[in-house]
Amino acid sequence: MKLIAFDADDTLWVNEPNYVNVKDKLFEMMAHHVDPVILSQRFYDAQMRNLRVFGYGAKSFILSMIETGIELTNGAITGSEIQQIIDVGRELLDFPIEVLDGVQEVLETLSNHFDLMVLTKGDLFDQESKIARSGLGHYFKHVEIVSEKNEQAYLSILKKYNLQPSEFIMIGNSLKSDVLPVVHIGCRAIHIPFSVTWEHEQVADEQLLDKSFTTLESARELLTLFESSLPPVILNKSFY
Amino acid sequence: MKLIAFDADDTLWVNEPNYVNVKDKLFEMMAHHVDPVILSQRFYDAQMRNLRVFGYGAKSFILSMIETGIELTNGAITGSEIQQIIDVGRELLDFPIEVLDGVQEVLETLSNHFDLMVLTKGDLFDQESKIARSGLGHYFKHVEIVSEKNEQAYLSILKKYNLQPSEFIMIGNSLKSDVLPVVHIGCRAIHIPFSVTWEHEQVADEQLLDKSFTTLESARELLTLFESSLPPVILNKSFY
Repeated sequence: MKLIAFDADDTLWVNEPNYVNVKDKLFEMMAHHVDPVILSQRFYDAQMRNLRVFGYGAKSFILSMIETGIELTNGAITGSEIQQIIDVGRELLDFPIEVLDGVQEVLETLSNHFDLMVLTKGDLFDQESKIARSGLGHYFKHVEIVSEKNEQAYLSILKKYNLQPSEFIMIGNSLKSDVLPVVHIGCRAIHIPFSVTWEHEQVADEQLLDKSFTTLESARELLTLFESSLPPVILNKSFY
Repeated sequence: MKLIAFDADDTLWVNEPNYVNVKDKLFEMMAHHVDPVILSQRFYDAQMRNLRVFGYGAKSFILSMIETGIELTNGAITGSEIQQIIDVGRELLDFPIEVLDGVQEVLETLSNHFDLMVLTKGDLFDQESKIARSGLGHYFKHVEIVSEKNEQAYLSILKKYNLQPSEFIMIGNSLKSDVLPVVHIGCRAIHIPFSVTWEHEQVADEQLLDKSFTTLESARELLTLFESSLPPVILNKSFY
């Protein structure tokens, strides 16, 4: 094991609930214009449509919300209401980072024995800002922010860091982004589910058939998992 | 010389004129609401104010333009007009890439002898899309997209790639982002000015005092500059 990579949002810190919270505020704000159920559906459609052009992250979220507001009111939404969307959306770019239980201790311990990486997808500026606000940056030797976490992206990481599949492990909350593509290219993955999963990140049960990965209840359990390989100074690849 | 890094926008391909073009269209569109000179000034102010939260790039540009429209019309701008801002702004995310004169030949030659890198700042998704659309991606061994190109960012690159300052050279059109911070940390920089420079990237002449770097008229001249070190297979650090 040469490199342990951690997803960031909802693996190291709470993220999705902030989006849910902002969405709730905006839906409430627009409730006199449109039915929340329709708003929710159309907003998701706009996000998916815009993904190819705008990518992930807060700015993309704000732009999709503005477009949905305009569409559902046939352009009758006012400039001031759109400014409110931007102002509420801006919270997504500077909410206080709540580090998940056990993460700090796990990083403290593992960083003494392994090279750690943050490997996250999304908006560069947005993600860098969250890493800075989290105060966890110093535990990571590498930070890689990619636009999409698919097999190709993981293969590029292996190549860039000159790693064999057996030398890399990925830890994250998303089966779609952190587990399945990793397992498909022959690397190991650890799944730590989070209470809320964005619709776009959900996968059907049948996609998990014949896939081998480890699921933990919380980051804290990583210590037990890696325990047998600590503290020997020279670690080998068959640590679990 | 181990690594030659190229800036992307207005170094490898035309970029700023697309922004100027979109700005002109939007200013014209809003001409019945507001004076273009005031609009231009307030838009720049909005961009600077938002840089800390939204970063660089097209999405940030669109959001700042929307805010400026709302501000200058006291919220009277309509939803449909804002949709027009988004639609015109979206062009920034998929305009056809016009590779600058000589760039292709230079990359073709240099990539046979050196490791090349794209080193650009801005929005990750936006920049990755431009690299893909340019068709130049295969010349580059590395792509690094950073949120700001300052001394700290360049020092991180040297550290990450395990390079001495003498082993790295930066080529770009921006004195502020591609030349000054690079020279300050003891690396070499080549400046290839571009016809249009965004206000934010301009530097005062006195900042150039006592700074040593090479200025070329076009990318094509890089071939002459590097000529003496080609084609020997083993290149040394004193190639110019």
